[in-house]
Amino acid sequence: MADSPNCDLKSLSPLQLFERVTEQGEKVRALKAGKAPKDEIDAAVRMLLSLKLSYKTTTGQDYQAGLPPKDLVLINNGTTKEEDEDLVDPWNVQTSNAKGVDYDKLIVRFGSSKIDTDLINRIERAIGQKPHHFLRRGIFFSHRDMDQVLDAYENKKPFYLYTGRGPSSQAMHVGHLIPFMFTKWLQEVFDVPLVIQLTDDEKYLWKDMTVEKAYEYAKENAKDIIACGFDVNKTFIFSDLDYLGTSAGFYKNIVKVQKHVTFNQVKGIFGFTDSDCIGKISFPAIQAAPSFSSSFPQIFNGKENIQCLIPCAIDQDPYFRMTRDVAPRIGQPKPALLHSVFFPALQGAQTKMSASDPNSSIFLTDTAKQIKTKINKHAFSGGRDTIEEHRKYGGNCDVDVSIMYLTFFLEDDDRLEQLKQAYTSGELLTGELKKVLIETMQPLVAAHQERRKQVTDEIVKQFMTPRKLAFEF
Amino acid sequence: MADSPNCDLKSLSPLQLFERVTEQGEKVRALKAGKAPKDEIDAAVRMLLSLKLSYKTTTGQDYQAGLPPKDLVLINNGTTKEEDEDLVDPWNVQTSNAKGVDYDKLIVRFGSSKIDTDLINRIERAIGQKPHHFLRRGIFFSHRDMDQVLDAYENKKPFYLYTGRGPSSQAMHVGHLIPFMFTKWLQEVFDVPLVIQLTDDEKYLWKDMTVEKAYEYAKENAKDIIACGFDVNKTFIFSDLDYLGTSAGFYKNIVKVQKHVTFNQVKGIFGFTDSDCIGKISFPAIQAAPSFSSSFPQIFNGKENIQCLIPCAIDQDPYFRMTRDVAPRIGQPKPALLHSVFFPALQGAQTKMSASDPNSSIFLTDTAKQIKTKINKHAFSGGRDTIEEHRKYGGNCDVDVSIMYLTFFLEDDDRLEQLKQAYTSGELLTGELKKVLIETMQPLVAAHQERRKQVTDEIVKQFMTPRKLAFEF
Repeated sequence: MADSPNCDLKSLSPLQLFERVTEQGEKVRALKAGKAPKDEIDAAVRMLLSLKLSYKTTTGQDYQAGLPPKDLVLINNGTTKEEDEDLVDPWNVQTSNAKGVDYDKLIVRFGSSKIDTDLINRIERAIGQKPHHFLRRGIFFSHRDMDQVLDAYENKKPFYLYTGRGPSSQAMHVGHLIPFMFTKWLQEVFDVPLVIQLTDDEKYLWKDMTVEKAYEYAKENAKDIIACGFDVNKTFIFSDLDYLGTSAGFYKNIVKVQKHVTFNQVKGIFGFTDSDCIGKISFPAIQAAPSFSSSFPQIFNGKENIQCLIPCAIDQDPYFRMTRDVAPRIGQPKPALLHSVFFPALQGAQTKMSASDPNSSIFLTDTAKQIKTKINKHAFSGGRDTIEEHRKYGGNCDVDVSIMYLTFFLEDDDRLEQLKQAYTSGELLTGELKKVLIETMQPLVAAHQERRKQVTDEIVKQFMTPRKLAFEF
Repeated sequence: MADSPNCDLKSLSPLQLFERVTEQGEKVRALKAGKAPKDEIDAAVRMLLSLKLSYKTTTGQDYQAGLPPKDLVLINNGTTKEEDEDLVDPWNVQTSNAKGVDYDKLIVRFGSSKIDTDLINRIERAIGQKPHHFLRRGIFFSHRDMDQVLDAYENKKPFYLYTGRGPSSQAMHVGHLIPFMFTKWLQEVFDVPLVIQLTDDEKYLWKDMTVEKAYEYAKENAKDIIACGFDVNKTFIFSDLDYLGTSAGFYKNIVKVQKHVTFNQVKGIFGFTDSDCIGKISFPAIQAAPSFSSSFPQIFNGKENIQCLIPCAIDQDPYFRMTRDVAPRIGQPKPALLHSVFFPALQGAQTKMSASDPNSSIFLTDTAKQIKTKINKHAFSGGRDTIEEHRKYGGNCDVDVSIMYLTFFLEDDDRLEQLKQAYTSGELLTGELKKVLIETMQPLVAAHQERRKQVTDEIVKQFMTPRKLAFEF
């Protein structure tokens, strides 16, 4: 939207205006840094001033870098929320804060537990190695019953991992890899079975898409997931549309969940209304059912009571709060959870990634050149308006998207710390920081593309065939 | 309830009181007919008078034989109905008329078409034989698009039959056989494939029953269905709980229907409320999906466009009105329907049969003696209070349950007509009529029991295994 030059400013929302001002500010900085002709810089500055004026007229507030307008009081399907509360559900993530969602508040609101140093240390003791940087850096920040999983592990009792993806399009971005990278690590350190649900039925229900297309996307997405390096002997990937018709256990668990959840409850949890189709209304049971090992009799030998651990982004928690509520009533153990923060859009942490906006993230199909251009052009910067100011006051790591992305993808703790300090002090300029990010992302994406090329249809079929895995139950 | 001697009259509903008066009236008649001691007859008459008084006190109306109290304005899950309108949905059938539901009104309300003489004649021409007595006697009285099915048949285009049963208990009564007897006849005269759905998932959702129990009932009920004489090479019987997990096509059709029906719609059609579980809310799609041939790829070779014809009791029509509404929107042909009247309870045509009340009907497991006792004791009579009155004024065939049952089960048209005339004229007494019914039902049930004994678990398994049938598509 912000990229269209013909877009009438008056028709823009405060947030869109905010983005335009920010973008124009970056353009001015780039022109100055590139020592562009004076008239070109002047024109850009005039445009910036005009945009700032529009912003003030529309919002009644002065533009402040990194502080988007406080107009995001969203109505979510009839349920209202506090003005300064973040909106987080499986279909919407909205915050008014450029630092992103307030995760501490979310923990309180959702009633989960913070992953604190004690828990991280306990994990380290249990697995006998340094925990993943996603844990050390608070990217997986919240949990439910992880202590119980560790108890089970320490007592040599089995558990399994369950994660998933909604295959809304062929295009996956680097943010989509986060739960899979972490899940792969969990699987390796704990050596447990993993099931990965592709909710193609959900996408069919929510989007303007045929059943066939949704299933095609599921198989395409499976390739990117497999390319993360999962072990076919320990991992089962399934499409709902496919697996529901081939499993003796899955539907039985779905209907059990469906018996124990009322419309009132899903209305409260997911904001469904009377105008929603009955498919949406009953879908939460389909995402709930893989939390119970009896949904996979071929893997667990029909055993009902194997503990499940679900690594996922926190927006999926409503499904599993519901699941945990139902579990004891159908005689099943509650699944444990590990929640991640959201992966920020290049434009800033205010919104969740959008697979439909090619500039909102780095896609797994992007070329090295596209990655470079996107980061240079779109990565929201916490830097100052001029080099002079930046050197003097330093950059703001809390809102800088390059720093955020590096926190996800740069494994070297010392290097990351060094970059943050240099950026905060003003020693490191935005352009230099972006260069580090480009050089981190380009090989990472290229390597993924190489691995994905190896994933044939035959390999996908192997992963997606219901079968026994390399574990005895 | 009416059988309990300890039941306080004041706690009885007007309908229950009505039943008590009726029952007591019959008792008095029986005692008189059996020339019982005078004091015994007197005591029974005193009890009858006392019951009639209670009835008048409670209802403000005088007791009239065959005319139950007009208090049946029922609230069906929040939707009200006209005071004199019959209540007909898949879970409730209520009428205030002893003759039963007003089916002509129902045709108008449901928007279906009457099976008239023209249609019956057309069926006779198409199949080259006399139509089944269920058609000739108006037991199957209403249809949707039966003309199209006959068009298809005459043009050598294929169609298939779909019917079903909710396996709420092991106990099936003779009324449950009606759709199957008729479906068997349809299959024989048209020589087409037949699919029979056992909605064990529905019973699990609606009743206090485990998934395992519901599935067990499904298999038990399948034995009674198979005992009707279906051809295993032309018939596929399936439990939802089982088939949903083994079919590549069924769930895809379910989710397609679920996408095209809103909660508002099922609320309007089925009277669901916000307090209903999401399983109930989405269930109608599961009963809808077998109307589409692609739910059975193994039978129809994956073909999507085979016309479906559904013989069922009229209370199931709401499911198929919904299905017919959705069909064109998911690119499928609308199923055609043949609707039957309800099978009356022994106590009268005001209510649908209840499998949970052993005295409400003749069960398929009843002995000859039980059948005799039940008919003598419970079959609601249209006869007069005394033999003298009966001889003088004649019986009322419109409310007499023995006549109703014989209309279903006595195949000889002339004999039935003869009995009706003799009963109406007073020539035939109630006891004599009941004797004819007993002699009709005893061998019918005994023959069923004989056939059922032949139905082994192995035969059930054959019928319930997804497979190709003896038809090419």
